[in-house]
Amino acid sequence: MAYNLLQGKKGIIFGALDEKSIAWRTALRCHEEGAQLVLSNAPVALRMGEIKKLADAVNAPVIGADVVNMDDLRKLLEESMKHFGGGIDFILHSIGMSLNVRKGKHYTEIDYGFNQKSLDISSMSLHRVLRTAWEMDALNDWGSVVALTYIAAQRVFPDYNEMADAKALLESVARSFGYHYGVRKKVRVNTISQSPTKTTAGSGVKGFDGFISYAEKMSPLGNATGDQCADYCVTMFSDLTRMVTMQNLFHDGGFSFTGVTEAVINQMEK
Amino acid sequence: MAYNLLQGKKGIIFGALDEKSIAWRTALRCHEEGAQLVLSNAPVALRMGEIKKLADAVNAPVIGADVVNMDDLRKLLEESMKHFGGGIDFILHSIGMSLNVRKGKHYTEIDYGFNQKSLDISSMSLHRVLRTAWEMDALNDWGSVVALTYIAAQRVFPDYNEMADAKALLESVARSFGYHYGVRKKVRVNTISQSPTKTTAGSGVKGFDGFISYAEKMSPLGNATGDQCADYCVTMFSDLTRMVTMQNLFHDGGFSFTGVTEAVINQMEK
Amino acid sequence: MAYNLLQGKKGIIFGALDEKSIAWRTALRCHEEGAQLVLSNAPVALRMGEIKKLADAVNAPVIGADVVNMDDLRKLLEESMKHFGGGIDFILHSIGMSLNVRKGKHYTEIDYGFNQKSLDISSMSLHRVLRTAWEMDALNDWGSVVALTYIAAQRVFPDYNEMADAKALLESVARSFGYHYGVRKKVRVNTISQSPTKTTAGSGVKGFDGFISYAEKMSPLGNATGDQCADYCVTMFSDLTRMVTMQNLFHDGGFSFTGVTEAVINQMEK
Amino acid sequence: MAYNLLQGKKGIIFGALDEKSIAWRTALRCHEEGAQLVLSNAPVALRMGEIKKLADAVNAPVIGADVVNMDDLRKLLEESMKHFGGGIDFILHSIGMSLNVRKGKHYTEIDYGFNQKSLDISSMSLHRVLRTAWEMDALNDWGSVVALTYIAAQRVFPDYNEMADAKALLESVARSFGYHYGVRKKVRVNTISQSPTKTTAGSGVKGFDGFISYAEKMSPLGNATGDQCADYCVTMFSDLTRMVTMQNLFHDGGFSFTGVTEAVINQMEK
Repeated sequence: MAYNLLQGKKGIIFGALDEKSIAWRTALRCHEEGAQLVLSNAPVALRMGEIKKLADAVNAPVIGADVVNMDDLRKLLEESMKHFGGGIDFILHSIGMSLNVRKGKHYTEIDYGFNQKSLDISSMSLHRVLRTAWEMDALNDWGSVVALTYIAAQRVFPDYNEMADAKALLESVARSFGYHYGVRKKVRVNTISQSPTKTTAGSGVKGFDGFISYAEKMSPLGNATGDQCADYCVTMFSDLTRMVTMQNLFHDGGFSFTGVTEAVINQMEK
Repeated sequence: MAYNLLQGKKGIIFGALDEKSIAWRTALRCHEEGAQLVLSNAPVALRMGEIKKLADAVNAPVIGADVVNMDDLRKLLEESMKHFGGGIDFILHSIGMSLNVRKGKHYTEIDYGFNQKSLDISSMSLHRVLRTAWEMDALNDWGSVVALTYIAAQRVFPDYNEMADAKALLESVARSFGYHYGVRKKVRVNTISQSPTKTTAGSGVKGFDGFISYAEKMSPLGNATGDQCADYCVTMFSDLTRMVTMQNLFHDGGFSFTGVTEAVINQMEK
Repeated sequence: MAYNLLQGKKGIIFGALDEKSIAWRTALRCHEEGAQLVLSNAPVALRMGEIKKLADAVNAPVIGADVVNMDDLRKLLEESMKHFGGGIDFILHSIGMSLNVRKGKHYTEIDYGFNQKSLDISSMSLHRVLRTAWEMDALNDWGSVVALTYIAAQRVFPDYNEMADAKALLESVARSFGYHYGVRKKVRVNTISQSPTKTTAGSGVKGFDGFISYAEKMSPLGNATGDQCADYCVTMFSDLTRMVTMQNLFHDGGFSFTGVTEAVINQMEK
Repeated sequence: MAYNLLQGKKGIIFGALDEKSIAWRTALRCHEEGAQLVLSNAPVALRMGEIKKLADAVNAPVIGADVVNMDDLRKLLEESMKHFGGGIDFILHSIGMSLNVRKGKHYTEIDYGFNQKSLDISSMSLHRVLRTAWEMDALNDWGSVVALTYIAAQRVFPDYNEMADAKALLESVARSFGYHYGVRKKVRVNTISQSPTKTTAGSGVKGFDGFISYAEKMSPLGNATGDQCADYCVTMFSDLTRMVTMQNLFHDGGFSFTGVTEAVINQMEK
């Protein structure tokens, strides 16, 4: 069901890899709600090729950008504004990458060169995107920026590894830049802390299936799906949430404020 | 602008006193978004009389209820379900009262009998409403309940007095009951922590004007208005936020995550 | 091992029921560290009789007081100051009671009369104690007050029932009164959020053993014992923590910031 | 006054620059409490030379180490263990450096190369130290590690700039590594979030004096001094706090849970 919540709005969606991606689901929902879109992803992700399918579905150009390359970001925003014929109203940052996780390195044995890349790509990229927009004055008044994060930024989930630290950094960047962009131009910046979701990216994490099932049992409403996250992103991009900024918003079926459930206690007693 | 976000939904709005009330603004917005409403307030508040104006505007019956009287609550829900011809989809709890504040008693000198009333009316009333709905199975699957609160539940604002404790209790009740109602029926329960707002109720608090101006200076986006809060409530009542539960959601222009602003530092240097 | 951390200090310990009580362990440790003590508990608890054993061990008078009776509290403080020959340096509030829990009432079915008693005894009692001290100017400069609490104040543990709400209220009272007493007299007020502990009081809670074992598995250091909590209380009463106030301090082996452990995941996979 | 709280314990203190440094004050207090120490700092800081004075006072060797150089860290721990004749019981991490702050770059205009250095030196250095100890099994059972941080990790203080993000990352590393070291060896890792303190490092921050005075007015007990922080560190290194881990502990006179004070409101009304 669509409500025209984003009628007339223009947005950039980072990070749609394939149809399981939250960014993919969000692009579809934003389109349904009347938004015009530009899709972006890293060149290597684009070569894996499915994004063309999404681009057709939402009638959006795909503009590759390495989020740690300031020239790429500038070009992306320039071309987006040209495409839109004006400023940008919202941005979804759904970007995360950990070479240490991919290589199966334990948190106590991470490679610091990889770690630096993880932080740059997963966290400081939000600063880079916002700063590029800031310099180009690319975001419209009351623009809305959402970055996806995970509760490992607050509590330890051992297999989440260095991504926990990357998400903590990401959330801090959202607050810090959110302050400045709010004061200057009423732009709001928030993070959405989503349930573990069976995306292609998520599936790479060790012990992920066991963990998904634990989270399901620990959430009064169960785990939130990618489609539900897309719905929530739509509300955050809409004009109905203008005064929400610098927040980390849990979208997780109640997991974050549940200490234990009867379902988990029952399992513990087995 | 309206989006039909609440088309077909039925809701009860507690606490609309006059046109400055957040509950009043929310009722108007819910009506615009297609919801059918029932309005409720304490008998004494109803006698002050303006609610009739709102009832006409949103085409809703007014059913008085003392929120600490279980018979009143049961009658309210029964009549509401009869009026709606079915279950209830959302409830706004915008209820707070402190005799100690009204009487100007300092926090260190509160009357404990008054305090007990404050906690019962301002906090346990949420339990009473939810428990009545629970017993009557009055809330539909995926129903949404929002209670308004204030950041004094987390940090001390001296003039807010015992209402700080009442709000902390209220937020805990929202989590506790939210767990049970979520597990049983996917009903979600959240609190919205709103900027200080110039309502008739708020104006009674000592030093309120000075405080509003401080909050304004401490919020990157400024204080959120009652109308903006109404917009936010609409998103929480809609189907787009189904997996958000047991949360305390700050709707405050960034106040909650701002340590200090340049505006405040400048003022401090005077 | 003793360090004379509390040499010359005078304190009141509320809530020592039997030798498993955290208050009991704390009294022993405070005595070892050189403090002079007064023990207090509700008249009904005193009649159960073991406190005499503790009183002998720590050479302290026992002064009964119903913590919701202002006359009792005033008398307690008067007699304590007389006994000490001066003001009071620290107070331990280890008080909690829920008739709804005792009667086995589910959270959704609590008796509101019982609930009011639970809140008054478990939470507002801290206000009553502090207010009595405030009026009598009974606490010395830099005095330290600690109340014991539990993480159910932040996250739902279903079997903890209405005590979750009571603890949330208690923590808010600690902050609120801590502000005023800090400004006026440098007195600090904190809560310690302790692991589930096998005390006689704790054992009454339904599903408590299963829960203790879950908490043990979810804490990197395991559950904290009553003796360890006593040690921690000693540091909070000492002069080494003078600038810590209005805090909720988790003493729980890391439970509070652990999202999941390998031990729990392993159990979930069974 | 000394209590022999650290009798027989061995610790490494990072970051004592001059006698205003919190690390310096902590070294003095740890020495008074009976600990044996090793002092470490970056080679460039050592050349500025005052540390010799401290080394004499606490009878400790100074071993230079660049905290982002794994060979340096290994050598430091090896030499320390040789000096101590055994394992290490505690570590103070008081390390932070931001070239962007030094160069006066606004948060929206930071140099990303500098930023990477800031994160590596101020935050990942804690991982590097802990990982070196982990690999060498250098920390004794129940060892205690404290890193100093600031509340800008939670809320925005605009002039704190990128150090806010660095501190958020640091606190996450403390939790993440604290989990693993706790499970393996009962080692606990915490951060202490200290009031703004007039150290030589702190003084470099723009608007620091105005900010110190604001924090003083916003703290019911006033700002905590470096000496008081040293006292608090002593308790965290002692055996009395063994079950506290993965926590961020505010040592700030109540600033963190104060929304506003009468002193600030009065100033705002001028």
